[in-house]
Amino acid sequence: MATKGKNTIIQTTPNDNVGIVANVNGLEKGMEVNGITAKDAIPMGHKMALCDLEIGDKVIRYGQTIGYAKTKIGKGEWVDALKMDLPQPPDLDSIPMPQPKRNTIEPLEGYTFQGFRNTDGSVGTKNVLGITTSVQCVAGMTDFVVKKIKAELLPRFPNVDDVVALNHSYGCGVAIDAPAAIIPIRTVRNLAQNPNFGGELMIIGLGCEKLQPNRLLNDSVTDASILFLQDEAFTGFSEMVEGIMQIAERHLHKLNARQRTTCPASDLVVGMQCGGSDAFSGITGNPASGFAADLIVRAGGTVFFSEVTEVRDAVHLLVPRTTDPSVAQALLNEMAWYDHYLAQGSADRSANPTPGNKRGGLSNVVEKALGSIAKSGTSPIVDVVAPGDKVRRKGLNFVATPASDFVCGTLQMAAGMNIHVFITGRGTPYGLAAVPVVKVSSNSKLGNRWFDLIDFDAGPIAEGTKTIEEAGWDLFHLILEVASGKRKVAADTLGIHNDLVLFNPAPLT
Amino acid sequence: MATKGKNTIIQTTPNDNVGIVANVNGLEKGMEVNGITAKDAIPMGHKMALCDLEIGDKVIRYGQTIGYAKTKIGKGEWVDALKMDLPQPPDLDSIPMPQPKRNTIEPLEGYTFQGFRNTDGSVGTKNVLGITTSVQCVAGMTDFVVKKIKAELLPRFPNVDDVVALNHSYGCGVAIDAPAAIIPIRTVRNLAQNPNFGGELMIIGLGCEKLQPNRLLNDSVTDASILFLQDEAFTGFSEMVEGIMQIAERHLHKLNARQRTTCPASDLVVGMQCGGSDAFSGITGNPASGFAADLIVRAGGTVFFSEVTEVRDAVHLLVPRTTDPSVAQALLNEMAWYDHYLAQGSADRSANPTPGNKRGGLSNVVEKALGSIAKSGTSPIVDVVAPGDKVRRKGLNFVATPASDFVCGTLQMAAGMNIHVFITGRGTPYGLAAVPVVKVSSNSKLGNRWFDLIDFDAGPIAEGTKTIEEAGWDLFHLILEVASGKRKVAADTLGIHNDLVLFNPAPLT
Repeated sequence: MATKGKNTIIQTTPNDNVGIVANVNGLEKGMEVNGITAKDAIPMGHKMALCDLEIGDKVIRYGQTIGYAKTKIGKGEWVDALKMDLPQPPDLDSIPMPQPKRNTIEPLEGYTFQGFRNTDGSVGTKNVLGITTSVQCVAGMTDFVVKKIKAELLPRFPNVDDVVALNHSYGCGVAIDAPAAIIPIRTVRNLAQNPNFGGELMIIGLGCEKLQPNRLLNDSVTDASILFLQDEAFTGFSEMVEGIMQIAERHLHKLNARQRTTCPASDLVVGMQCGGSDAFSGITGNPASGFAADLIVRAGGTVFFSEVTEVRDAVHLLVPRTTDPSVAQALLNEMAWYDHYLAQGSADRSANPTPGNKRGGLSNVVEKALGSIAKSGTSPIVDVVAPGDKVRRKGLNFVATPASDFVCGTLQMAAGMNIHVFITGRGTPYGLAAVPVVKVSSNSKLGNRWFDLIDFDAGPIAEGTKTIEEAGWDLFHLILEVASGKRKVAADTLGIHNDLVLFNPAPLT
Repeated sequence: MATKGKNTIIQTTPNDNVGIVANVNGLEKGMEVNGITAKDAIPMGHKMALCDLEIGDKVIRYGQTIGYAKTKIGKGEWVDALKMDLPQPPDLDSIPMPQPKRNTIEPLEGYTFQGFRNTDGSVGTKNVLGITTSVQCVAGMTDFVVKKIKAELLPRFPNVDDVVALNHSYGCGVAIDAPAAIIPIRTVRNLAQNPNFGGELMIIGLGCEKLQPNRLLNDSVTDASILFLQDEAFTGFSEMVEGIMQIAERHLHKLNARQRTTCPASDLVVGMQCGGSDAFSGITGNPASGFAADLIVRAGGTVFFSEVTEVRDAVHLLVPRTTDPSVAQALLNEMAWYDHYLAQGSADRSANPTPGNKRGGLSNVVEKALGSIAKSGTSPIVDVVAPGDKVRRKGLNFVATPASDFVCGTLQMAAGMNIHVFITGRGTPYGLAAVPVVKVSSNSKLGNRWFDLIDFDAGPIAEGTKTIEEAGWDLFHLILEVASGKRKVAADTLGIHNDLVLFNPAPLT
C-alpha cells in the first residue's frame, strides 16, 4: 500500500504484476516510473505491466488473478480491458465451509454520538416524518401534501428535520403473489420502519391497490394513521388533503418531542456502498471506508456491505470470513439466486462494469469486485440479509442487493441503516432524503473539482500524504459528527436527493 | 345497453344470464328488480343471477363466458368471484387468421383543434421543455434545476407551458445488453420525442452510466444539448447548474416561438387507458370512450388501447378486427411474449384484477378484459406497437403494455400520444406532467364525490339519462377542447402528477 511521499504507480501487493498509475495526468510514453519505462501513454487509474506477460499469463492485482493476457504484453505497456480474458467466477459448490469461530475482535470503547433513541432500541440520526405510500397512484398527491406540510405545519415543530414522501413504483398492476414479489413488499414495509422515522408510521393508500396497507404493515400501524383516497368520507381533493394534514400533524407532535441523547457508537448502522468507481476506489476510498467499518464493528456497531455482482467474483475470500457455516451458506445462496436471476434474463455478472468504470481503469468485474470488498474491512461477517429484509445482528452484515446505486441505497435503507457512506471515483451527486449520505472521493482530482458535492476526500492516500489508517480514523470521526447532526452532508446542504427505487424481480401484470 | 329512464339492473346483451346492479346503494335482499327478487343484498356494480345456474353452467356477460358456476346459484342471488371458476384463456395457436380487408370506415370531417405543429409532422397539445435524463443518478440534480428554471427563466418565455424532468429509475447497474433491455432503452428515447416537447431535445447525463446518451438518442440530439455532470469543465455544483440553465434557455427560446395553429382532428393521438375499474367501466366509461375512439379514427386520427393482461382473454375477439394477418400475428406474438414473461415469474394473467376491481364487482380477468376492450371502440386494428416503441400508422393501434396504470401511461406517452383518456370506477388522482389526462368516471357516485378530480362523468349512461352515443360525442368534444389548451384537466389544475415508470423486464446487475 501507499506510503507517505509522492507515488506515481501503486502496487497493491508484492505479488502484483500490474501497477496503477497514480499521477493526475497519467503517464506519458517514455516516462520512467519505479525504474520502468512507460511504453504507452497510460491514463490515471489504469494499469501498467510491471513485467513481460505471455499469452495466457495471469494478470495479478490485489494478489489475485483478475484476468489472463490475451496478447503478449511488454513490461511498461498499458494493460487495458481488451488485452485480458475474464476468469471464471468461483464455483459456488466447491468453496470450503468455514468452521464456527469465536469473536476475537478487539473492542473499541468511548466513542459516542448524539442520536434520537427509538422505543424499539434503534437510533435515528435525523428526525423525519416519513409518509409511506402503498402504490404509485398516490404519488402526485403525496408530493402535493408534503410541500403543504413543509410550508404550513413544519415551522411549528422545530425539532423535526424534514418531511419525506416514500414514493415508489410498486403497488398497482403487479403479480403480488409471485414468489419474488416478497422483495418489493418487504422493502416498502421496512423502509417505513427506518430508525430516522422514529416509529411514527403513516400511510397514504388509494383503496383498490394490490399492495393493501394491511398486507404492507400488518398491525404495526393503527387504522387512524392510514388514509385511503377512495374513502367515501372525502368529497373532493381538498378534503383528502385536509385528512392527510390531520394525520401528519398528530405524528409531527410526537416526533417533535424527540430529543438527541448521547448514544454509544454501537448504535450506528452504516451502509457502505460504492458507485461510479475507478481504479483508485480499491486503493483509497474503499480501504479507508473498510478501516472505518472495522472501527465501527469494534465499537459494537453495525456495518452493511452489498452489491451481489460486485462480490460474486470475490466470494471465495468472503466465505472464510463468515462466523458460522449457516452464514456462509446464506451468502452462497444469495450468489446462486442472483446467478439464476441474471441467467433467466440472458445476462451474467460480466454486465456489471459501466463504461465509466472502464474509463476509470477498472477492466472487468473481477478487478471491480476485489476493490469493492475492501470497503467491508476485515471483520467477520456475522449475517446475511436478503434483499429488502431488515438487519438482525450487530456487526458486519452482507446485505444482498443489486449494484445499481439507488437500488442498493434503497435496500440498505430498508435494512435499517441510519447513515450511508458512498465511495465514488468518477463522481455522482447521489443523495437520500431521509438518511445522510457521506460521499467519499477516491481521488483528489474529483475531490477538488467537486469540492461542494464530496464530503470526504480519500485521494491523499494515493498521493502518499495520508495513510489508509489516518483516512479511516478521519472518516470514522466524520461519521460520528454527521450522525450527531453537527455536520450536514453535501447532498443535504444542496438539497439534492434521489428517488427510492425498489428491486422487483417479479413480473408486472 | 341502457336506455333513458331509471335502471336498477343492466344486462349487456340479451344472452347474458347475469345483470349488473346499477343503483348507487346496491340492492337490498328482497327488493324486486325487473321481475326478479334479490335473494342477497348485492352491492352496486356487482352481478345478480337472472336465472338459476347449475354447477358447471356458463356465467355469461357481454354475450361471452366469464366463468363457470362453482356452486348452484339461484335466480336473484349475488354472483361473486368465489362462486365462479376462471375459464381457460383463448389458445393463441388456434385463433383463425383474418383475411386482409379494405378500410370501410365512414369518414368524419370538419373537426379541428388548436395544436403546436412540429417539423416531423406530429402535433403537440402543450408546449413543454422536457429534460431527458440518461440515469437516475442525476434525478436530484434535475429536480433542483427544474425548480430554478421555472422560477428564473420560464417567466420570460410566456408561450412555454411548463418544464418537466423526465426522471426514471434506469441507466445504472442494469444488464444493458440483455435482450429485454431494449424495452426501457427505447422507452426513454421515445419519451424524449413526445410531440409535446416540440423536438427540443436536451439530456442531462452523469458520464459513467450504462445508458450513454449517444446510445439513447444517437444523432437526434446535438452535443451542445447534452451535459455530463462528470464533465471536467465543471468545478462544483453551481457551475453544473449554470451549464444546464444555459442549455435550457436556448431551448426555451425556440419553444417560445411555437404558436398554436388550427390542426385537423386527424392529428390527435389519443391514449385510452382504464384503471381502478369497476363493473360499470365496461358499461359506461369504456363504451363511451370507445365511441369517442371511433369518432377520432373516423376523423383520421390515432387511438391507442393497451394492457396485455386485460385483452388476453378477449384476444379471439380482437384478431378478426385486425386489418392484415401480419397485424394479427404481431398481436398474438405480444400475447405469447407476455404469457412467457409471466410464467417465468411463476405468475399468470389471473394475477391481474386488484382487490378494488373485485370490490367493484369485477370477478375475474375475463370479465375485466371484456369490459376493457370496449374502450377500443369498433374500428379495425391497423397496427401493434411493441412496449416502448413509437406509433407508425394512423388509426386504431394496440400498444402492448402492462396494465399497471403509470407503466401503461409511460409507454403510451413513449408511443407518441398527445392526449390521454383514463377511465376509472374506483377513482385515482392519476396525472402526467407532460400530456393532459382526461379522467372519466364510470359511475356518478364517484363523479360527484370527486367533482374536482374527474373531468368527465360517464355515470349518466347507467342511470339512463344519457346514451353511450351522447356521452361519446361529449367526450370527443372535450378531447378537442383539452387538446386546444382551452380547457385544463383536473390533474393540471391541481398540479398532481405521477412519476414516469419504465417497464424493464431485463435484470439489474
